[in-house]
Parts: sequence; C-alpha cells; structure tokens
Amino acid sequence: MNTLKIIPMSEKDFAPFGDLIDFDRAYDYQINKGNCDRYNALATPEAIGTDARSVISLMRARPYTLPLTLTVMERHPYGSQAFIPLSKDPFLVVVAEDKDGAPANPKAFMTEPGQGVNYHRNTWHSMLTPIDTETDFLIVDRKGVEANVVEVSLDQPVVIG
Amino acid sequence: MNTLKIIPMSEKDFAPFGDLIDFDRAYDYQINKGNCDRYNALATPEAIGTDARSVISLMRARPYTLPLTLTVMERHPYGSQAFIPLSKDPFLVVVAEDKDGAPANPKAFMTEPGQGVNYHRNTWHSMLTPIDTETDFLIVDRKGVEANVVEVSLDQPVVIG
Repeated sequence: MNTLKIIPMSEKDFAPFGDLIDFDRAYDYQINKGNCDRYNALATPEAIGTDARSVISLMRARPYTLPLTLTVMERHPYGSQAFIPLSKDPFLVVVAEDKDGAPANPKAFMTEPGQGVNYHRNTWHSMLTPIDTETDFLIVDRKGVEANVVEVSLDQPVVIG
Repeated sequence: MNTLKIIPMSEKDFAPFGDLIDFDRAYDYQINKGNCDRYNALATPEAIGTDARSVISLMRARPYTLPLTLTVMERHPYGSQAFIPLSKDPFLVVVAEDKDGAPANPKAFMTEPGQGVNYHRNTWHSMLTPIDTETDFLIVDRKGVEANVVEVSLDQPVVIG
C-alpha cells in the first residue's frame, strides 16, 4: 500500500489545486470608517452548466483519525467548492493531479488553525476530513441541473499520516 | 433621538431582509458515506451587472459597544452580501425597510452564537457591528464593474441597545 506524508499547508504548494482562504497577508482595504479590514476576493466561486449558481451551505463533519486509508477521490466538473471551518480546528486536505481522467500524485496538507480552502473546478480531492474533532464548515459551491460529482476508486489505497 | 430595542434574531422576522445561516434545522442530506451532514443552499448569493461574480473575502472587524448611535445605513444595488462569523461571538444586525429610496422602520437583531446572515440585494443595513469582541467574518458578496454601495445619512440618528 502507498503511504503519503502530511505536509504543512502553504499557499504556493496548494495553488495548482485551489485558493487558500486565510488572514495571512496584508488587508486590501478598510471599510466602515477604518473599523474593519477587508481581505478581498480571496477566492472566486465558479458555477457552470444549466441554471447554475453558487450557493452557501453548512456542513457538520464527523472526525477521522490518523493514519487514514484513502480509497476514493472525487471531483466536480461544474463548479468550485470552498470549505471554511467555523472554528480554529485544522483539517486534512488531500488533493491530486489529474492523469487521463484519474487522480495522480496525491498531496496531503494539514491546514493551520482558521484556514479554509477553495478547490478549483475539476480538482481531485478527498472527502471532508476533520481530524479527531467534529467540525462545522461553511461551504460555497454550485447548484445546477447537471450531476456534479465524479467519484473514482483508487487503484492502490493510500495510507495518510 | 429615536431609540431602538434589540430583539433576538429569528428566521421569520429576518426573512424580509435576508437569509439566516445556521444549524438550527434538520440537515438536508448526508455525504461522505454518512460522515457529514449537509444543510444545503441556506443562501444563494446574487451578483448582477457588468462582469459581475460572487467572491469570497474575509473581514476582521473591530467591536462596537452598546448603546450604539447609528447615523448612516447602506445598501448594495448589484448584489447580496453574506456575513458568517468565524467564531461563536454574536453580532448586531441592523436592517431597515425601504421607503422612497431611504431606510425606514429599522430593526436591530442580536444573533445567536454561530449564526450568519445573507442580506438580500438592495436591503438597507448598518455597518458590520460585532459587540465588545473583535470578530473575524467570512463574506460572500459581489465583484463587478458598477459601484455597488449606496450610503445615506439618517434624518434622525438612532440609538440602539
């Protein structure tokens, strides 16, 4: 079985897969007479297809424990998908490149407390994996007519952590 | 000077002004083999106008103290605006009806811990007002060509709380 080491989340390493949503940068501008710093447009949701629009949802996700065996990955051909934790609990983010319509070269990132992610449209990723702690998330993804989940079983399960 | 009493947030009372984003309902469906409850499409961001799209931003907002004197309100003719706190701190939500292009009959709601709101397009509201505690928020609103803020001074300042 393949094993995959967890690496710290970084904007640069994650960039091919999506956007990192966090406060680790200078704010863009202030509003409300200087009482509020705005970090603007950290991610732009994408929603394509028939009657497609972005929607805001919540998720309550049960935790996983490490080491974790990954057997499937999924992607969404019609839209991006953002996950922002509503607490400071880090969570595991597993993504992969695409090779001939299947996930290849997976990477496992552990977020810093408070970081969220926006997976780009059609990016391979794992299920939502908080570690050890049930975690609530805000989601921004897509509603539309076409079915929007492609799930594949991995040729070789991957053990993470 | 007018005074305005703060009332508890409720989905029904807030409905004319926007969507309430919280876990206080049955989940819609489960994903990830039952490991995650999804509360689906609690709000649908609206973004209209030239090159308009929804964007995800962060805000770090300094706190206000009560009683608070409100002298201006604002609205966004080209898009909705969602504010979801990234902590359990309640915040003050002041909204108003429209009467001949000006805010009328304001209402002041205090959220329950963890609740977020999505102001409908063109709904009068106040600046972002966490109370006593600096609070981080996730924002989903609109980027586009047209200027998107209309701010008006109130004929009579309103004292809240």
